[in-house]
Amino acid sequence: MERKKLLIGVIGGSKCDEEIAKIAFRVGEIIAEEGHYLICGGLTGVMEHAARGAKSKNGVTIGILPGESKSTANPYIEIPIATGVGYARNAIIVLTADVLIAIDGEYGTLSEIAYALIYNKPVYGIRTWDIPGVRHIFSPEEVRGILLSLC
Amino acid sequence: MERKKLLIGVIGGSKCDEEIAKIAFRVGEIIAEEGHYLICGGLTGVMEHAARGAKSKNGVTIGILPGESKSTANPYIEIPIATGVGYARNAIIVLTADVLIAIDGEYGTLSEIAYALIYNKPVYGIRTWDIPGVRHIFSPEEVRGILLSLC
Amino acid sequence: MERKKLLIGVIGGSKCDEEIAKIAFRVGEIIAEEGHYLICGGLTGVMEHAARGAKSKNGVTIGILPGESKSTANPYIEIPIATGVGYARNAIIVLTADVLIAIDGEYGTLSEIAYALIYNKPVYGIRTWDIPGVRHIFSPEEVRGILLSLC
Amino acid sequence: MERKKLLIGVIGGSKCDEEIAKIAFRVGEIIAEEGHYLICGGLTGVMEHAARGAKSKNGVTIGILPGESKSTANPYIEIPIATGVGYARNAIIVLTADVLIAIDGEYGTLSEIAYALIYNKPVYGIRTWDIPGVRHIFSPEEVRGILLSLC
Repeated sequence: MERKKLLIGVIGGSKCDEEIAKIAFRVGEIIAEEGHYLICGGLTGVMEHAARGAKSKNGVTIGILPGESKSTANPYIEIPIATGVGYARNAIIVLTADVLIAIDGEYGTLSEIAYALIYNKPVYGIRTWDIPGVRHIFSPEEVRGILLSLC
Repeated sequence: MERKKLLIGVIGGSKCDEEIAKIAFRVGEIIAEEGHYLICGGLTGVMEHAARGAKSKNGVTIGILPGESKSTANPYIEIPIATGVGYARNAIIVLTADVLIAIDGEYGTLSEIAYALIYNKPVYGIRTWDIPGVRHIFSPEEVRGILLSLC
Repeated sequence: MERKKLLIGVIGGSKCDEEIAKIAFRVGEIIAEEGHYLICGGLTGVMEHAARGAKSKNGVTIGILPGESKSTANPYIEIPIATGVGYARNAIIVLTADVLIAIDGEYGTLSEIAYALIYNKPVYGIRTWDIPGVRHIFSPEEVRGILLSLC
Repeated sequence: MERKKLLIGVIGGSKCDEEIAKIAFRVGEIIAEEGHYLICGGLTGVMEHAARGAKSKNGVTIGILPGESKSTANPYIEIPIATGVGYARNAIIVLTADVLIAIDGEYGTLSEIAYALIYNKPVYGIRTWDIPGVRHIFSPEEVRGILLSLC
């Protein structure tokens, strides 16, 4: 029997240091290894590194872009969605994801965490905003357990 | 060399008669046969029949939903995007599609045709609104030629 | 007793000739004379001339802008709303208006007419798209009668 | 010379206790006394008490509603904007406001604070989320000084 494919949201800043990049990459790998789809904001930084990780394991990657053109998607996005609604697209990422992994990030990530908590989506955080409701984890390896628990 | 995968938008009403259903199904089949992805509004009628056609040929189907829940997607949508922005999602379908095939349809389809023409996306119509700028075709088989001309 | 204030949507192109400009101005004047609020897309052309007309009679003018900055509003907009959602803002104009007056216009106006008909809002047209459901009128003076009939 | 009218955003929860209600009411009063317009989410709680305060001083009140119907606006909203985009409307409130006053609030307010900081809008907080970038104040009376400093 085929396992249910989930859409796993990865949220985080468009800029990040190397350590965060490695974490994001590994989270992307694990999502793909577990057979799920990665959804993110489609741009640079955490979004790109996570998508690169998922692609390295032949995963499906979806980018919900703020602008009107798909050309802004990072090269690891297989399915770019050009929303044209600006940062309001953060709500779309959250509504579409079954669970969210927040990695690092600034105010954009904070808005996504807030939406996740508004819409009662589970949100796991790695080195990110400490907001009540976020379940903090400390290693990308923990994401595998989270994904297994969801199926 | 892998051919470029395009996102082909299929727009049309949430209700349709059997003849239109067959046309939509065949358009979906052709999109998948040509190796492209189908994007639509994710609901019933033309959207569902086209997605069913694409799925019957193992195609990838994306549904841009108006509501906040993915559960409203028809069963042939592989990747449901829950936008939560209501009919404003019609602009997202158009911005994301590389080309649009309009089949039958009512006012929702008219708004999508209008957006396609605003954003200079090619829009082909089968038994749909007669708006200047729409390129009318008469058989789903013509869609194959259109797709071949785009690659 | 105070008459109920309605929000009257004026939709039309961002470019227009002098004759259309005069019609839009007069429609704006009448909306303000009748004590109602004008809502439009906030930019140039028909939107600006109608807002100018309303302001000339001390009316209230609301502009639902596509971009992220209020600075794009024409100078006759008293209350600019910066939506940041691009042309998807056309749905917001329609949802907020109690009735729509379409004057001339291109594809943007067509999308607004489509939304008006989706949402069952009355839409009156002057020299605009001939879409079933649009009630055609021939002079701005007729707008007064329409407004009187709504209260 | 007429002073420039600003749009002052008041953000906060749809539920609040009596003490917060009094604070919101007083903030609304001060906004109107200073001749500015109040913009909020248009619903209950802090939004309603602030609008009621502004109306008590004959202020102009604008409500950016999440749903498709203006009927959900609280009775103190003079200009209801029905966006139909759900919580994505939070970005519209922030983009339209010149400055934001956050009072109490839960995750919705947090998303608005995040948007304010994304878009570099000044955000003052009374008994609200402690996010870096929020300027905390302790009494509604301080709002008058803030408004005076903006003109």
